This record gives sequence, C-alpha cells and structure tokens, in this order.
Amino acid sequence: MPAFSHLIRFLAKDGQVYYGDAILPPGVTDIAKATQAKVIKGDIFGQHQVTHQTAEVKLLLAPLAREDIGTVRGLGLNYEQHAKESNLPIPKYPVLFYKPVTSIGGPTDDIPVPYLVQGDEGLDYECELVIVIGKLAKDVPENRALDYVLGYAVGNDVSHRDWQIKRGGGQWALGKSFDGWAPFGPGIVTTDVIRDPNALMISTKLNGQTVQCSSTKDMVFHVAQTVSFLSKGTTLLPGDLIFTGTPQGVGMGRKPQLWLKDGDQVEVSLDNVGSCVNKVVYEKPSPKL
Amino acid sequence: MPAFSHLIRFLAKDGQVYYGDAILPPGVTDIAKATQAKVIKGDIFGQHQVTHQTAEVKLLLAPLAREDIGTVRGLGLNYEQHAKESNLPIPKYPVLFYKPVTSIGGPTDDIPVPYLVQGDEGLDYECELVIVIGKLAKDVPENRALDYVLGYAVGNDVSHRDWQIKRGGGQWALGKSFDGWAPFGPGIVTTDVIRDPNALMISTKLNGQTVQCSSTKDMVFHVAQTVSFLSKGTTLLPGDLIFTGTPQGVGMGRKPQLWLKDGDQVEVSLDNVGSCVNKVVYEKPSPKL
Repeated sequence: MPAFSHLIRFLAKDGQVYYGDAILPPGVTDIAKATQAKVIKGDIFGQHQVTHQTAEVKLLLAPLAREDIGTVRGLGLNYEQHAKESNLPIPKYPVLFYKPVTSIGGPTDDIPVPYLVQGDEGLDYECELVIVIGKLAKDVPENRALDYVLGYAVGNDVSHRDWQIKRGGGQWALGKSFDGWAPFGPGIVTTDVIRDPNALMISTKLNGQTVQCSSTKDMVFHVAQTVSFLSKGTTLLPGDLIFTGTPQGVGMGRKPQLWLKDGDQVEVSLDNVGSCVNKVVYEKPSPKL
Repeated sequence: MPAFSHLIRFLAKDGQVYYGDAILPPGVTDIAKATQAKVIKGDIFGQHQVTHQTAEVKLLLAPLAREDIGTVRGLGLNYEQHAKESNLPIPKYPVLFYKPVTSIGGPTDDIPVPYLVQGDEGLDYECELVIVIGKLAKDVPENRALDYVLGYAVGNDVSHRDWQIKRGGGQWALGKSFDGWAPFGPGIVTTDVIRDPNALMISTKLNGQTVQCSSTKDMVFHVAQTVSFLSKGTTLLPGDLIFTGTPQGVGMGRKPQLWLKDGDQVEVSLDNVGSCVNKVVYEKPSPKL
C-alpha cells in the first residue's frame, strides 16, 4: 500500500521538482487547488516515504514522470451512451488502442496541434477516468483486480476524428497520438480513498460550458473488469496507464458537430480527483519540413 | 554515430548480461551465428565505447533491454503484395498501431499463446524489418530521416486474426499485444552497414518451409518516409521501435489458410541481419483465473 493518498508531481517554489502527497484544505477534493504537499522520497511504486518536508506548489506537472510511465492504453466505446451517440453497438470485448508516452501532458499544459492536422475539422475532446497500475499484474481475476491499481486520475484523450477514422486505414492511432494529446492529472487519488471508481461524476467544459457530464457507472467494462481482461496473457506493469473511454457528449456526436479550435480551453473533471484545464494551441509549421 | 556495427545483447558464458558488438567470421552475416562479441560499456544511444574485452555468447537476448525500449509501433498493409492478398487498397497514409513493450521477445524465445486465444484458429506470423530509432526525432524531413535511425533488426509481429480483426471492434490491439508476441533480433545492424534498408530480402520459414519471401523494396512507405511521417507532430525517442509491416504470404492470405499451432517453429530472416527462430508454445490455463 502506498503511504500517500493524493499523489502529485510538481515544480515547487524552491525550483525543484518533487513527488508529493497533496495537502488539501478541509472540504476541498480538487487536487488542482493544492498549494502545498508533503514531499515523497523513494520509489512511488515501491519503497517510499511521505516525509515531514512541506513544499509550496508552483506548478502541477503530469502526476508521473515520463520515465515512470509504462504503456498507455485506451479503451473505445466504453460508455453505453457514447456507443449509442456513435451509432455503434455496445462492444462485446474492450476496444483497445494505445497512445505513446510522448502524448502525455500535465494538468495545465497546452494541447499542441501540429500543422499537419490544422487544415481539417475534427479536433475533439474526451474526458476519461485514468487507471494507474501500481503492481505487476498478469491473469488477474476480476475480484482481485483493484489490488493492482495504484489510483485514479482524469485525462483527456484528445482525438482528431478525420485522422482517427478516415485516414488511418481504420486504426485510430494517427488521430490520437500527437505530442501532448493525453494530458492527465491533476494528481492520482489512491484506491483507499476512491473505493468505487465506477460511481464518480465525470465531465468536460469547453470554454466554461459543460459539454460532457456523466457517471463512470455508465462504463461498459468497469474498472475491475478492464484490468482483469487486459491482464489476460499480457503483463501490466507499474506505471501503465489505462484511459477508460469517454461518455456521451463528444463533439463528433453533437448536432451540429462541435470541433476544438485554436485558443479553446478544455477542462476535464472527475469527482474526488479534480480537473485538468488545457488550452488548444496551433503550432507553427516546422521550419524543418 | 555509434561505435558498434552489429549490436547484440547476450547472456555470456561468464553468467553476465552484456551489450556487445558481435564478432562475425568472414563471410557470415547472420548475427544469430555470433559466438563472441566485444563488450560495450556505456549508453547505447549516447556515450559508449566498444571495449577490448571479448565475451563468449551463451544466449542471444532481445537486442535492447526492456528499460532501453521506448514505444513499439507497427505498420499495417505496408507491402503492396500483402495489401493485395488482404483484398485491401494500398494505404494513402501509414496504417499505424502499437504493441506494448511486454510483447517484446528475444531471437530464440518461445512465443507463448495464452489460454484465452487457444480455442480459435487464426494465429499467424509476420516477418518484418524493425527500425530502431537512435536519436530524438520530431518533424524530420525524409532526406534526413535515416540520420535518426540507429539500425535495423528483424521481428515477428505475431497476430491472432480473430482477435485482431473480429473481436477488437476493428482495432487490432487485442490480437497483437500478448506477452512475447514481438520477438526481434538477432541483433541491430547499424545504418553505416545497411545503407539502403529498402533493398533487403525478407522471409519466413514455418517448420523449415518458406512461407514468406519478398524484398523490403516492396514497402509502400519506405523506411525514410515512415520515420519522417511518424515524426510529424510526434516525438520519436531513442529506443523506439517501428515494425514496418509484412510482405505477402501470411497464413491468413493463403488458400487454404495456414495457422500456427502448438510446437510450431517460426523463423523470420532479413538479409544482412540474420534470423529469429521462435517456437509456438501453448500456455497452461492460469490457476488464478
């Protein structure tokens, strides 16, 4: 069991980057509001201790360092209402895809949009509960699956629908893999705080307007089912992330459709965890290309 | 530029695991035949040196340690004749998917087949040229793309067609991700030895019979095009692997279809690199499930 309950990674006012256990004022559950944390020393997934050293938070970073992140998995069509708005059947097995570790971003990082995909409509948001694997897991039964989870965060599985659906030969990777297209955070809340990950409200605000609002109880494959299934024949490692799919309300499913544009602010939120607020920023064309 | 030309990772007769520069007898190009290597010290992707210490090879391992492997990408339908046998159009953009790092295996490792997928036909082989990225690459033009490549290996993108095509909701991951389903090796031959990666014969033997035999010149997106395209908006990191697709002759495309079974021996070969020889081994059902 980890010694922390609200794991953050942050740039402190002293200029150092730390892992910490966020100190939240009474009644506050949004980790993004943390201004102080107790510094954690050691291996987040192994031997570590929450020290008595308190540090002031200057900037929250992605809650795991790149070298501590393993494989990043995602599920498609994993909310019943989202499958319906996509006019697709409820899947019989989890619809699995991957995002590269370079797609990971922090809770306030910009979402860069490469020049390659700026010309087209189709840039979309997806609020998702993110499972963080805490222990090596293989062939784990459903009733023990949560023992292998460190905790939960909220993330945005940013997707460009044209590149995801029309140009990738049916494989979604081209439209979901760009640098910074998987911001997550603001921290990781452990399983002893969130006992039931499938009873949490999850939502997205676009420029302050709510565009997705659902509960993780609408998931087709709940967290324990997902971890168990994905561990069959496949070893899940500490630091692996699983983006568990998005509820209804994505831009593609709206009438009229609603696409992200340069300068938009997207906020994804999960109860008991908090919010990531990221700005869409069109990149300039690379001088190298 | 690396100081080595034929990178291997191996268990030596002294019981240690080393990176080494394989010593090949005159006229031998198959790295799998290396019995000795000069030990390499330092960072394969950075400061290192090929020492004067010679070690005896007991067993070749996957040519990169897991902690040195980044993201594992794969391309689909990237040989013209294979697209034709699959009755699918030549893709306009690279068809991208991922395999988790846990799918990596060594050049003589068994290919374990989980109990979950044993009941069905559809287990297939795919010989592929594997690109090993050597330097951080983003927005790299085609005419400089090979500068970011460390070298090349051969791999087997083991695939279960039912799980890849029918059960994953159209996403291929479920049928391509199991532990050990991406053996590669036997070593990595650097770009100063293989100047043109798109002029190499590539083949598969199943139980000694040739079932795939083609040239990498049949690739739809050649190596430089692939690296350049994948680097657009996406940072490729040292140790990232790209499985570049397979030529015609896969079991799915044959009449009658030909599926791997327990005990089969599969050999994938690439000229100037060598061969990986892996045995298909059905796993026993996990007592935990």
